[in-house]
Amino acid sequence: MIKITLPDGSVREYNEGVTAYDVAASISQGLAKAVLAAEVDGEVWDLTRPITKDSSLKLLKFEDEGGKKTFWHSSAHLMAEAIEEAYPGVKFWVGPAVEDKFYYDIDLGDRKLTEEDLGKLEKRMLELAKQGNKYVRTAMPKAEAVAYFTEKGDEYKLDLLQNLNDGEITFYQQGNFTDLCRGPHIPSTDYIKAAKLLSVAGAYWKGDEKNKQLTRVYGITFPKQAQLDAHLAMLEEARKNDHRTLGRELEIFTFDEEVGPGLPLWLPKGAAIIEKLEKLAKESEHEQGYVRVKSPHLAKEAMYLRSGHLPYYADSMFPPMELDGQKYYLKAMNCPHHHKIFGALPKSYRDLPMRLAEYGTCYRYEQSGELFGLMRVRSMQMNDAHIYCTKAQFADEFMKVNELYVKYFKIFGIDKYQMRFSKHEPSKLGQKYIDNAPLWQETEAMVREVLVKSGVPFVEVADEAAFYGPKIDIQLWSAIGKEFTIATNQVDFAQAERFDLTFMNEHNEKERPIIIHRAPLGTHERFIGFLLEHYGGKFPLWLAPEQIAILPISDKYMDYAREVQQSLRKAGFEVTLDDRAEKIGKKIRDTEIKRTPYMLVVGEKEAADRAVAVRRQGKGDLGTMPLTDFIAQAKAEVENYQ
Amino acid sequence: MIKITLPDGSVREYNEGVTAYDVAASISQGLAKAVLAAEVDGEVWDLTRPITKDSSLKLLKFEDEGGKKTFWHSSAHLMAEAIEEAYPGVKFWVGPAVEDKFYYDIDLGDRKLTEEDLGKLEKRMLELAKQGNKYVRTAMPKAEAVAYFTEKGDEYKLDLLQNLNDGEITFYQQGNFTDLCRGPHIPSTDYIKAAKLLSVAGAYWKGDEKNKQLTRVYGITFPKQAQLDAHLAMLEEARKNDHRTLGRELEIFTFDEEVGPGLPLWLPKGAAIIEKLEKLAKESEHEQGYVRVKSPHLAKEAMYLRSGHLPYYADSMFPPMELDGQKYYLKAMNCPHHHKIFGALPKSYRDLPMRLAEYGTCYRYEQSGELFGLMRVRSMQMNDAHIYCTKAQFADEFMKVNELYVKYFKIFGIDKYQMRFSKHEPSKLGQKYIDNAPLWQETEAMVREVLVKSGVPFVEVADEAAFYGPKIDIQLWSAIGKEFTIATNQVDFAQAERFDLTFMNEHNEKERPIIIHRAPLGTHERFIGFLLEHYGGKFPLWLAPEQIAILPISDKYMDYAREVQQSLRKAGFEVTLDDRAEKIGKKIRDTEIKRTPYMLVVGEKEAADRAVAVRRQGKGDLGTMPLTDFIAQAKAEVENYQ
Repeated sequence: MIKITLPDGSVREYNEGVTAYDVAASISQGLAKAVLAAEVDGEVWDLTRPITKDSSLKLLKFEDEGGKKTFWHSSAHLMAEAIEEAYPGVKFWVGPAVEDKFYYDIDLGDRKLTEEDLGKLEKRMLELAKQGNKYVRTAMPKAEAVAYFTEKGDEYKLDLLQNLNDGEITFYQQGNFTDLCRGPHIPSTDYIKAAKLLSVAGAYWKGDEKNKQLTRVYGITFPKQAQLDAHLAMLEEARKNDHRTLGRELEIFTFDEEVGPGLPLWLPKGAAIIEKLEKLAKESEHEQGYVRVKSPHLAKEAMYLRSGHLPYYADSMFPPMELDGQKYYLKAMNCPHHHKIFGALPKSYRDLPMRLAEYGTCYRYEQSGELFGLMRVRSMQMNDAHIYCTKAQFADEFMKVNELYVKYFKIFGIDKYQMRFSKHEPSKLGQKYIDNAPLWQETEAMVREVLVKSGVPFVEVADEAAFYGPKIDIQLWSAIGKEFTIATNQVDFAQAERFDLTFMNEHNEKERPIIIHRAPLGTHERFIGFLLEHYGGKFPLWLAPEQIAILPISDKYMDYAREVQQSLRKAGFEVTLDDRAEKIGKKIRDTEIKRTPYMLVVGEKEAADRAVAVRRQGKGDLGTMPLTDFIAQAKAEVENYQ
Repeated sequence: MIKITLPDGSVREYNEGVTAYDVAASISQGLAKAVLAAEVDGEVWDLTRPITKDSSLKLLKFEDEGGKKTFWHSSAHLMAEAIEEAYPGVKFWVGPAVEDKFYYDIDLGDRKLTEEDLGKLEKRMLELAKQGNKYVRTAMPKAEAVAYFTEKGDEYKLDLLQNLNDGEITFYQQGNFTDLCRGPHIPSTDYIKAAKLLSVAGAYWKGDEKNKQLTRVYGITFPKQAQLDAHLAMLEEARKNDHRTLGRELEIFTFDEEVGPGLPLWLPKGAAIIEKLEKLAKESEHEQGYVRVKSPHLAKEAMYLRSGHLPYYADSMFPPMELDGQKYYLKAMNCPHHHKIFGALPKSYRDLPMRLAEYGTCYRYEQSGELFGLMRVRSMQMNDAHIYCTKAQFADEFMKVNELYVKYFKIFGIDKYQMRFSKHEPSKLGQKYIDNAPLWQETEAMVREVLVKSGVPFVEVADEAAFYGPKIDIQLWSAIGKEFTIATNQVDFAQAERFDLTFMNEHNEKERPIIIHRAPLGTHERFIGFLLEHYGGKFPLWLAPEQIAILPISDKYMDYAREVQQSLRKAGFEVTLDDRAEKIGKKIRDTEIKRTPYMLVVGEKEAADRAVAVRRQGKGDLGTMPLTDFIAQAKAEVENYQ
């Protein structure tokens, strides 16, 4: 008998060779039907693989990341079976599950896949799925595997084998398809009930553009048709709400070939949104006792050698400029400049916590192929700040940072978010992480305590901390369910030493501050990209670059329209007046395209009554009301971030 | 007889060979005593040089730049006479008048001049001046001059002679000193009544650090002792109010060796001033219909080749970065980025005037020896905007820009300023200036008309325009009389073509906009440097980074002090609370050093009456008043930019 420990801590005894499926079935038949794979001692396994010793076991469903990835990886094999059947002789490279889909890179020779081909393959996949073929795992000695693929003439799998050792080589077979594969897989193909092949793209072998270009086929599958339908509807919504399309339509930003890729130019309406975001951040930060600083966009190599960004981070930085015999680098982050500012004047414990904030523009080198709208850019303006505090102040400061995050999520209507608490890995102290085990344990415990106390949803992830301390990434989901990682929050107990930052403590001794790096609104680029998609371009009144449009029914009411415009401007609104000689219907349609939150139609009756006929975007006609009432109502909305 | 035309247009007849001095004497003896030199047909001449043909004549006094420069250049010769007499055998390079003093570069061998030496030379200069020696001009053939200096063994003057042609070589002699010199000079040494030798510095021969280092002696002279006294008092005041000293004392900015020279780091108090300046500018610009944009700090070489900044301006730009096989340059000005933004979307006459504003940080390369505090830096954040308008809109737009300048001068208490209207030179069309004579004439006439209409003081200067249009530099004088050139305003009728910028006019034809470049507050760096000196660090309430300090008489009143602080913070003020266990006298003295505009002393009586005892910087004790009254009063001051 062996002992199986479940996540709730309960221990069950089974015969040696029991499978995770057996364990699930021993609990309930419903559970056995829902599970796809299992985590055995922290490693994801086939559900049907025999367990031979005492182990911890976590059953994985589609909702679990490990379950979903297994499901999609198995789907990649299923797709490969359909492709090999349709086009005999094609060769396969790798077919992994990625964030929200799977793909397979395939050498199709000169063949190009059409939309029609994809439809046929999709249909065949579902037929093969229905056959309920089992995914069968077989181990094979390396020599035998090499001989097999040599005979087959498959240079791709031979290349993969080079990096594998004898004893760790396994094959998986389902139906007529066999692949060199580490696994794991779902038990059989009939778990896959719905499939969609999404797109075809070129992909250089091993990502190297000197190599041959393979065909990458992307697909998505689900255990239920309804899940696929919902997913495709979400994708369609995302396509319509792509921030690049909206950014162009709403005149938010642009790129210019002569300026350079990844370097957005913010048009007046984009800059207006930036101004409002900065105002919100500056006010919120001022309230919490932050002070602002300003630093140049470059510094000598010496500073980045001190910070440790050079040489390790050099590939992500812009190349240097040679000036007066010195190398200067554009800043890829604001921290070193802020450390210099903190260190410029002597500090006492009375000065702490010191919270230095700056909307600093940073420059990072991304491969041109990686650039993507506002989401992956080369220039980024960060809602940055660094908090220098004592150990005793840390928990409070960290708590306040969390409160700021939550405040912003509320303002922007972000209902779904999660903090990803990245911790160190004890076995890598001194290599990947600075070598101070007690400090790591203490800090991580403090962070955990604050997270629990804050009541924010969070997950803990081992071995993903920064070199200098634990890190928190914030994952958000937009209104239509698309995921973004926007903000970060880091604890740093290394940079103070590198920059020799100190303060005089109560006992008149020099002490090093702890540093919190935080950027709750991330970068303007990524956050506005997110907001464009989150709101589908329909910005709330307070944030809209053009808040109110006045539409006179005819030229006769232009004087009154101008008066209304003037009153609204004085009340602090961005107001346009449609003074074209167009019909009111056309004026309304044209304004709707611009997603202006309020339209005020003015005609004879309105002019006589000093009123406005109000249309609210998304709510339609709100009826006629006195202008003064409208102003009061709109002002209240702005104050409540509506 | 020859005809002499005076600046008022009147024409007088004199015998051929008349001197400017004779002309002055023929008008009045007082005038003759005051004039120092004369402009004859646009060239500055000795007062005593015979005029042999019909000429225009302007008599120059010390108040005229030409008069002052002549006076100081003659003073350099007088100083040289005293130096040669004291140290026989020294050799002289050049001795020009510069902006506000004169100097002479001298090869003194190994000799170092001490303060005491300068005092002796000063005394001797005044003795020599009293002798009333005449400055005598003699022409000499080149061969003779070369022979003279060869015999004397003076390699410096021989070097100067190399670049002179036969027939243009003149010598000037006064007393025992003779110098190769183009002139002009004042009539005799007794015009010089007051002298001060200011300092001694090293200066490489011809400014090349590979050459020998000469000794540069700086001096200043005046026609009256009272003028010297006033000037020295101004210099002393300026020394005390040097923005570098104040910037350090008041914790406004700092430099860091590892960041780089000329790249200021703004400390929290400096950043607080920047925020207020930006708020003022943004509000003023918003009122005038500007919209804001944001652009990256770099662009490809291609854009700067298009704008024409490359290759001509390359020496003033930071060196390029090589990225993806392309050269990228940091921006040295915002205009090309703004042109790209204007050009990104089609424009109609309805969109004009379009006023694009940005507080963009530019980077310019200055030799490290040229860097000077905040006045000459390598990174500069400009109060920049570009106005794109039609020809018909130009005068109005230009007028509004001028109004903005005048508004700012009033806010900052700048009583003395002058606009320097730099025009083209017709003979250089097609070389130094774009070749469109009618356009230059028309634009310059429009500019002149606006300047006259504005009623601002201005001077016209020929041959100093920008390549692409007339330019206006604004010269300011600080409260203690130091001159600064801060802001510029340029008309541009060339860049629209280079960037192919157009709009659709009323007749549905493409037309090019005129562009106005303007930066009324200049750069943050130079403007805050100016303000520090202008206010002597005593910022008005609205602009002070720390506006109000609360000084409790003892710990017993700390609760009330905190209440006062809270109320003031809510009212929008930056308030500090001196909670140290120090005597009130020390608290007051320490706060005075920080130049905080208001100190509020609170003790038993104030706490009981909910009052504050108010001390206003520069005005002393204002007595005790209810807190609410104080808040109302301080708010009113801020609203009035006091």
